[in-house]
Amino acid sequence: MSTTNEQFLDDFRTMSTFGATEGGGVDRQAGTAADHETRQWFGGWLARHGFNETVDQAGNQFGTVELVPGAPYVLVGSHLDSQPLAGRYDGAYGVLAAAHAAARVADDVAAGKVEPRYNLAVVNWFNEEGSRFTPSMMGSSVFTGKLALDTALATTDAAGETVSAALRNGHRQAEGSAPALTDVANYAEIHIEQGRILQEQGIQIGIVDKTWAASKYRVTVNGAQSHTGATRMEDRQDALYGAALLIAAARDLTAEFGQGLLHTSVSEMQVLPNSPVTIARQVLMNLDLRSPDEDVLARARDILAKWIGDVQERSRTDVQLELTHQWGLVAYQPEGVALGTASAEQLGFSHMNIMTVAGHDSTNMKDAVPTVMLFVPSEEGISHNEAEFTRGEDAVRGAELLTEVVRRLVRGELEAAAINND
Amino acid sequence: MSTTNEQFLDDFRTMSTFGATEGGGVDRQAGTAADHETRQWFGGWLARHGFNETVDQAGNQFGTVELVPGAPYVLVGSHLDSQPLAGRYDGAYGVLAAAHAAARVADDVAAGKVEPRYNLAVVNWFNEEGSRFTPSMMGSSVFTGKLALDTALATTDAAGETVSAALRNGHRQAEGSAPALTDVANYAEIHIEQGRILQEQGIQIGIVDKTWAASKYRVTVNGAQSHTGATRMEDRQDALYGAALLIAAARDLTAEFGQGLLHTSVSEMQVLPNSPVTIARQVLMNLDLRSPDEDVLARARDILAKWIGDVQERSRTDVQLELTHQWGLVAYQPEGVALGTASAEQLGFSHMNIMTVAGHDSTNMKDAVPTVMLFVPSEEGISHNEAEFTRGEDAVRGAELLTEVVRRLVRGELEAAAINND
Repeated sequence: MSTTNEQFLDDFRTMSTFGATEGGGVDRQAGTAADHETRQWFGGWLARHGFNETVDQAGNQFGTVELVPGAPYVLVGSHLDSQPLAGRYDGAYGVLAAAHAAARVADDVAAGKVEPRYNLAVVNWFNEEGSRFTPSMMGSSVFTGKLALDTALATTDAAGETVSAALRNGHRQAEGSAPALTDVANYAEIHIEQGRILQEQGIQIGIVDKTWAASKYRVTVNGAQSHTGATRMEDRQDALYGAALLIAAARDLTAEFGQGLLHTSVSEMQVLPNSPVTIARQVLMNLDLRSPDEDVLARARDILAKWIGDVQERSRTDVQLELTHQWGLVAYQPEGVALGTASAEQLGFSHMNIMTVAGHDSTNMKDAVPTVMLFVPSEEGISHNEAEFTRGEDAVRGAELLTEVVRRLVRGELEAAAINND
Repeated sequence: MSTTNEQFLDDFRTMSTFGATEGGGVDRQAGTAADHETRQWFGGWLARHGFNETVDQAGNQFGTVELVPGAPYVLVGSHLDSQPLAGRYDGAYGVLAAAHAAARVADDVAAGKVEPRYNLAVVNWFNEEGSRFTPSMMGSSVFTGKLALDTALATTDAAGETVSAALRNGHRQAEGSAPALTDVANYAEIHIEQGRILQEQGIQIGIVDKTWAASKYRVTVNGAQSHTGATRMEDRQDALYGAALLIAAARDLTAEFGQGLLHTSVSEMQVLPNSPVTIARQVLMNLDLRSPDEDVLARARDILAKWIGDVQERSRTDVQLELTHQWGLVAYQPEGVALGTASAEQLGFSHMNIMTVAGHDSTNMKDAVPTVMLFVPSEEGISHNEAEFTRGEDAVRGAELLTEVVRRLVRGELEAAAINND
């Protein structure tokens, strides 16, 4: 069943009512009631548009259409979960654009306008955000074999609830025979840029050709409890003071490199015992380093290691860094970039190659199958914030482009291009 | 019923089993099961030693002995609650010493050795520590009219449970006709020093003559949520970075004054949304400034106010300080210091006048009635830590001194001294 741009924008408005916040955003962390409601609505949408809905054991929600019995799938999607007090576009825009693109291409096939080589599947990946259940990109990590299913299901939130329980308490447990990685020929995803390069350069479409390299650490600062009033300053081993020095050092690190060459963040913290009259014995926090240059990342780690010695000495604490997650400056397949570019050219959309700083489910998928990743502009680059905004004309343009990309993928154009490149 | 020093140390060992931690300390935050168990055991102790147990509406637990029908009370006590993973001595030592002192003096009266002017009451103040329910010194603040009972009862912990519910779910709600402030003639308390002045100077007893001045603030740092990876460093308004700069500034502030003239601490923090991939929009934290010199405290506040401008500029955040609690450099009554000194002299204990840096329930009580506050040495000054330690001989000596102080208070010596001073 084909869809119009007006229907797409209508659907987007409806979808944005689930978990809607007063500030104009959404709050639907993975596995919460608001996430489940959005998934339920999306399941209904898939059924109304001729898709067969299935859910795998990691909570990934699929809608499949059989075009060529027994053929692999062109998979297209993103995620419906959000950060707390987040914007309406991050992930959700890509899932809805994927669903409309797939419906339009299925319609083309039914009308005899497209000769399919593959079947079509839409996906809503579970827990891309990782705010309630860490790590992020959980569903696509299990799907691509990077994370064990048991590990994912046993992950707990701050209140001790497991992913398994959160899925069980939601409306859709594993049901039906969901696609597996071996059933997938290639993958496409569209997302808001979450940066302001496209807007600043006045370009309509970004074709993602690389990811920024990232290193994520778990930081433990060990001090000793003592009385906030009575303990002499020179006797203190204040873990929160040590943590503060490290947060400041991580920020200072960015000034050691040229502008835009290093992003550093600390955004999650647990203080023990977190009492108003007892100096912290321990602080646990994250540390996130990203760069478009792997050498910068390596040099940043070396500098930080030296600075940590100073942090330890000044705060009389012990600081430990554990690398928990990393990815290199990995390229998306050139034939995918070429296919995205050809699609934009055909539709007359201005475009540029662009790197993604944020991780996406496509960051996982591109390591497994040929992947096309597209960006539409983000107003002022604001993201993970209720004020996140993408103009309707940009959103519609992206859905049209994704439709063309899926059309070409279903025809098998990516494989044809790859063979021609060999 | 009189008691021996061996019985005192035996009782202390028994009491230390409630909420005992593997590290040799205790963990019995106000209104928890471990606090209730300790209170229940203490209620049994009071009954076995001839006291009438009552509990007031703020959860303060009293044991009274009638010596002079209708006369006001000499009140003596401290608190049984603790910080998380705390030591065995803080508060608990003072409650048990008070109970033994009162039992011994009641025995002296019964034996005709002491002519009483007042009745005797022992108290275990509710929630002195303030780690679970803020503010600290809650029970004595309600008792002295500094905090409204309704406000105290409606205070919630991090999980949303109220003081009212915590008391109701414990073993002892308000029962009996508990003493009120108007029934109290004077107050005495003994506590571990929580510093290392007595140990360093080789002195057995501290007679507290003043409190350090303290100013406690609630700090709010307001930033804006954004993506930890994608947001350019210059676009960030990172509330956690602003908080880190303020923590470092608070520490640097102590270097502006001579050693021991200013203590500053930040020990409690809440980060919103506290997600690994979203920059913090808001951080709430405490800030605690203490000094033995009120002028230092005022100058420290002025310097910090200037530095906060720099913190705001560097982090592009807004920092607000709200004064929540303060006390000046208030003297304990000289006649109480004199009575404590005379008691130590009589027993042949070495002694010195000392200031308290930490707040105590006596900080509240001294503003209402003449108060005697005594310290015994703390090994290395360690406190709010499982390693907190006071030697048995020091603990016993303190209980003997408190007995002599209570004996003199019950006789009415404090009032006689005050009249002589007029």
